[in-house]
Amino acid sequence: MRPSGRAPEQTRDIRITRNYTKHAEGSVLIEFGDTKLICTASVENNVPRFLKGAGKGWITAEYGMLPRSTGSRMGREAARGKQGGRTVEIQRLIGRSLRAAVDLNKLGEHTITIDCDVIQADGGTRTAAITGGCVALVDALNHLVKTGRLKASPLVQMVGAISVGVFDGTPVADLDYAEDSTAETDMNVIMTDRGGFIEIQGTAEGAPFDREELDSMLALAKQSIEHLFDLQKAALEG
Amino acid sequence: MRPSGRAPEQTRDIRITRNYTKHAEGSVLIEFGDTKLICTASVENNVPRFLKGAGKGWITAEYGMLPRSTGSRMGREAARGKQGGRTVEIQRLIGRSLRAAVDLNKLGEHTITIDCDVIQADGGTRTAAITGGCVALVDALNHLVKTGRLKASPLVQMVGAISVGVFDGTPVADLDYAEDSTAETDMNVIMTDRGGFIEIQGTAEGAPFDREELDSMLALAKQSIEHLFDLQKAALEG
Amino acid sequence: MRPSGRAPEQTRDIRITRNYTKHAEGSVLIEFGDTKLICTASVENNVPRFLKGAGKGWITAEYGMLPRSTGSRMGREAARGKQGGRTVEIQRLIGRSLRAAVDLNKLGEHTITIDCDVIQADGGTRTAAITGGCVALVDALNHLVKTGRLKASPLVQMVGAISVGVFDGTPVADLDYAEDSTAETDMNVIMTDRGGFIEIQGTAEGAPFDREELDSMLALAKQSIEHLFDLQKAALEG
Amino acid sequence: MRPSGRAPEQTRDIRITRNYTKHAEGSVLIEFGDTKLICTASVENNVPRFLKGAGKGWITAEYGMLPRSTGSRMGREAARGKQGGRTVEIQRLIGRSLRAAVDLNKLGEHTITIDCDVIQADGGTRTAAITGGCVALVDALNHLVKTGRLKASPLVQMVGAISVGVFDGTPVADLDYAEDSTAETDMNVIMTDRGGFIEIQGTAEGAPFDREELDSMLALAKQSIEHLFDLQKAALEG
Amino acid sequence: MRPSGRAPEQTRDIRITRNYTKHAEGSVLIEFGDTKLICTASVENNVPRFLKGAGKGWITAEYGMLPRSTGSRMGREAARGKQGGRTVEIQRLIGRSLRAAVDLNKLGEHTITIDCDVIQADGGTRTAAITGGCVALVDALNHLVKTGRLKASPLVQMVGAISVGVFDGTPVADLDYAEDSTAETDMNVIMTDRGGFIEIQGTAEGAPFDREELDSMLALAKQSIEHLFDLQKAALEG
Amino acid sequence: MRPSGRAPEQTRDIRITRNYTKHAEGSVLIEFGDTKLICTASVENNVPRFLKGAGKGWITAEYGMLPRSTGSRMGREAARGKQGGRTVEIQRLIGRSLRAAVDLNKLGEHTITIDCDVIQADGGTRTAAITGGCVALVDALNHLVKTGRLKASPLVQMVGAISVGVFDGTPVADLDYAEDSTAETDMNVIMTDRGGFIEIQGTAEGAPFDREELDSMLALAKQSIEHLFDLQKAALEG
Repeated sequence: MRPSGRAPEQTRDIRITRNYTKHAEGSVLIEFGDTKLICTASVENNVPRFLKGAGKGWITAEYGMLPRSTGSRMGREAARGKQGGRTVEIQRLIGRSLRAAVDLNKLGEHTITIDCDVIQADGGTRTAAITGGCVALVDALNHLVKTGRLKASPLVQMVGAISVGVFDGTPVADLDYAEDSTAETDMNVIMTDRGGFIEIQGTAEGAPFDREELDSMLALAKQSIEHLFDLQKAALEG
Repeated sequence: MRPSGRAPEQTRDIRITRNYTKHAEGSVLIEFGDTKLICTASVENNVPRFLKGAGKGWITAEYGMLPRSTGSRMGREAARGKQGGRTVEIQRLIGRSLRAAVDLNKLGEHTITIDCDVIQADGGTRTAAITGGCVALVDALNHLVKTGRLKASPLVQMVGAISVGVFDGTPVADLDYAEDSTAETDMNVIMTDRGGFIEIQGTAEGAPFDREELDSMLALAKQSIEHLFDLQKAALEG
Repeated sequence: MRPSGRAPEQTRDIRITRNYTKHAEGSVLIEFGDTKLICTASVENNVPRFLKGAGKGWITAEYGMLPRSTGSRMGREAARGKQGGRTVEIQRLIGRSLRAAVDLNKLGEHTITIDCDVIQADGGTRTAAITGGCVALVDALNHLVKTGRLKASPLVQMVGAISVGVFDGTPVADLDYAEDSTAETDMNVIMTDRGGFIEIQGTAEGAPFDREELDSMLALAKQSIEHLFDLQKAALEG
Repeated sequence: MRPSGRAPEQTRDIRITRNYTKHAEGSVLIEFGDTKLICTASVENNVPRFLKGAGKGWITAEYGMLPRSTGSRMGREAARGKQGGRTVEIQRLIGRSLRAAVDLNKLGEHTITIDCDVIQADGGTRTAAITGGCVALVDALNHLVKTGRLKASPLVQMVGAISVGVFDGTPVADLDYAEDSTAETDMNVIMTDRGGFIEIQGTAEGAPFDREELDSMLALAKQSIEHLFDLQKAALEG
Repeated sequence: MRPSGRAPEQTRDIRITRNYTKHAEGSVLIEFGDTKLICTASVENNVPRFLKGAGKGWITAEYGMLPRSTGSRMGREAARGKQGGRTVEIQRLIGRSLRAAVDLNKLGEHTITIDCDVIQADGGTRTAAITGGCVALVDALNHLVKTGRLKASPLVQMVGAISVGVFDGTPVADLDYAEDSTAETDMNVIMTDRGGFIEIQGTAEGAPFDREELDSMLALAKQSIEHLFDLQKAALEG
Repeated sequence: MRPSGRAPEQTRDIRITRNYTKHAEGSVLIEFGDTKLICTASVENNVPRFLKGAGKGWITAEYGMLPRSTGSRMGREAARGKQGGRTVEIQRLIGRSLRAAVDLNKLGEHTITIDCDVIQADGGTRTAAITGGCVALVDALNHLVKTGRLKASPLVQMVGAISVGVFDGTPVADLDYAEDSTAETDMNVIMTDRGGFIEIQGTAEGAPFDREELDSMLALAKQSIEHLFDLQKAALEG
């Protein structure tokens, strides 16, 4: 029995709101139940030093949590003078995942930065960031086309992400904080809407997991992410 | 003629939404037109080292801007490894101002941290932070009473803040970004609902200002802040 | 009754010594009673990145205190690895104030850095820094003329600064440390020798201040700063 | 055809040398072909703050590369003033993996730090670090028993790790640098000698990977890690 | 022929002014010609962690240069966020040297920090810092006796320092900047007034130096430092 | 009687192993008894900013210790975010010493970085670093000749270094940790194979040392360093 009363394969209510703030080329509020993030996509007309002159673009991501997005206040990373290890790990994952959505060779010498800021946390912030960030990214790519800087969007495929895990012996999808903090295994799965895997990160928090549990979690993830692709599509058409 | 078409003494539409996020003891979304901040108040059961054993409490503030709250993306302070001078200056002002609202001797050994995070910027973020932060602070004080940690709220008075300036030769209230970036003089006025001044910070951006302009700005500020006290009161009673 | 026995409108003995050290283009020792600072003005033949190619110059300031300039030793900011919030706030104020003295468009692509280092502190260091820094700045501007790098000094006006406050219920000028640490209100006023205000920063340390107190403080400030202009002029002619 | 001429399931020559340096409680040189790391395990008689008084121990890991362990010199992280994102990500993975080897409740209030320093890099440093670090950890646990600080070793199971990937369309085990830098998919698999998974991290570097490739990689990983357990056992008995 | 016209064994005019600032327990202005430093000695009633409970005291030193103490402005270390290598090297030397002046076992659990801040630099700042710092230290030790915190001064011996070098083929004493920047060899010698060496640091800047040059430099150093002891003694008796 | 049973003038067994790792242009394992360091020399085709366009090269050094190279684990400098004072002092010494081996004017616009990383520490790491670093440097210079980037090696002379000291009243050579931690005086001597001094750093740890002790230590150093030159030569010819 899940704390939220959800069925094992049931995700939380997921909402995607585009144009949430006015300045960014893409700006999305994504909600996975009580988990809420603002994902913005910002376009700059240059590329990092290691790509100078290569004639291609770059996509990178940054992640942050408002100090009181969580149950007890976390110290502000800007005040402490460095990003923590968890933050660095998450923003590298978001960046890698979203680069898979785009043909960087067709992006021109632009950098798109996806900022994912957690307004309220209740588990699954990194998968929400990837899912919402992909929508903001699409808006930014379309902005480049509309403003004449690119002839066609270099979007290759949509990318979505969900967490799955083994909670109280049962594989479940889209863990909330109550589940995440006690789950035996936590796995983040990132897929494309063509059915391939971009990244799989499964971690045994307590006991190791076996092959059967892995297969169950992968099946749940596939099913949930297909639902995310429907929601992304609806939002982009809305 | 103001770019927004407002009359000189007219503030933007100001909205105060309490309980905006669920974890903090006080959580407010404050909007001054397109300027939007989340102000949370977090209570901790200890005090900074310099107050240990003094039997009194402390109120402090931190300020941040989401990287794409502005027209062009700003580098994330957490990634750059330090808070900029403007950030430090603003959060010190917010902290000083809100400490004036409370009798610290009656707060017990608690620290309340007011986090003011700018979601979208269009001028006047520091005055919005103080005005919204005061409402979040009141909620946190009341939370201390409700949970039995204090017998009565140590609130002494409400605090509100507005920016005034001289734009195109005319004193105006509540400058937005279009005005702020070209105003000759920019002054932030922080007052209490008993009519006293907490802080005045007036800066000539271009030509110096004279005594007559100063008096006009102070009059506009007084009038605008009285309006803010009405809005704070309505929000707290709502 | 002031601790020093001074009359309310009476400043401390103020001394300005030019050419205090030999390397800088301008070098001033300024003393407000026991408050002593070295203010140097250093000219560099370039401008910050945000001004590259704009054909104008820049003036900036840095502020520091020797670790034992105060009653108890403060940690050295260089050793702690960052400048404190108070330092940042003060040096930004000094920079803004001194930029008002000069027509940056006529400064050429030069940067002048005003370093204000407190040798001994007894209250009022930021106003002493502005007052002494302006003299060092004038010397550096004249140096640019003498060495043929500018045809005429771009000096527009002199800038002077004084702290005023409400001590024990009475408005007083030029607070020393004994007054500053217990004053109800502390206000720094920066003016030009043409009579305009550059900056006003008034802070209620305890009880809020009212309009009448504000007016008294402004009157004291005006009178004191006129005295500073006489001293600056005498030093520059000396 | 692999650049090294190895068969797809063939690992490099792997060597484990215990007691490589003299000061640490456990000290191992691990070589996966040309990849060489020193893994030391250091025991301290205290625990991190978040475990104080909990009556259990902690295991953590740090990772570093000598500046010229790689083909071109990397800047020294100590000189740059921070550990890079990749370093942080790797050392968190090593720590999580090795904590799975031990019953922390039976470790007493000790912290064991596993330092993994890359002397020479040729791909697969993180999996070599986990495999070699586990041997150093066992030595440190036995040291605690020998010196009477623990009655029995809290070792629960051995942990081993291997990288697998899809190179030129073929799933292969134990990628070296020549393969790693061009592989389509790179997956690190960490398992216990009881057959469970501790962590799976699979990343599509180019094209997404499908379920069939995933299954092939997992089979290769299982086979390779069983070989690692034989080598660990032989080293510990040697 | 030395640029200054001095004889090889001739030091610059050296002046020691005690009680230069009012807050510190010891405060000295030391001048070696145009090289000018403020050396303060600050007493704290505690010791560093590594000495807690050892029943002895500690002496440490910090060194800084005002940004425009030199011919061209140096970046402020506090603003750059770290002390440079040269600064660290110098302050460690000053600390080691001055600890030799005192019996730390008789200092009680006090820490004395010697701050040496260069107001104007013209070569030889580190040796001036040691020589002047020793006088400030003596004043601070006497202060501990006068205020009843120690029964007797734990001073063991005076410490003085001079730079010597080989300039244009000739061994010379007390190099100024013009000499220092072109000398073939630069050696700092720190001695006690009982005739022993505390530290010798000789560096060949260009060609190596031979034994004969070493002996000449040591003889010059001994002679010069004896002169410093006379000046220290006169200042302390003055 | 020395703890190791060595005669006063007897060094430890010293071994120099070239080509210890495969990536660097020069790579040496140097062992002074139980003190073991990896010294690599890395060539880059550019020079630091202060040498741009000067047509000459640069040699610099960095030093580090593996966290458990010592008896108790030291915090990793990369994790603490800065290099300690001792590290900075040592790497500056290594750099200065090795620059004396080379005619920088004939090095072309190349920078050679000598990385000295301590694998196991037992006293004398800085002198071992210089001695081993010089061999790695020679290999890197020869590499520049072999690859056609220089016509001839700009090597001027070999550089070697040894620590000498006064232990239990007797001057001894090549102090190990047991001696170093209790010696009255510790002196590092760096010489060239032409017999000149590059650097002398002698420090009285306890009682000051006198001229006679200094002369004895210098004689021991000369004799030991001549032995080092034999070993360097043998290694380079081997």
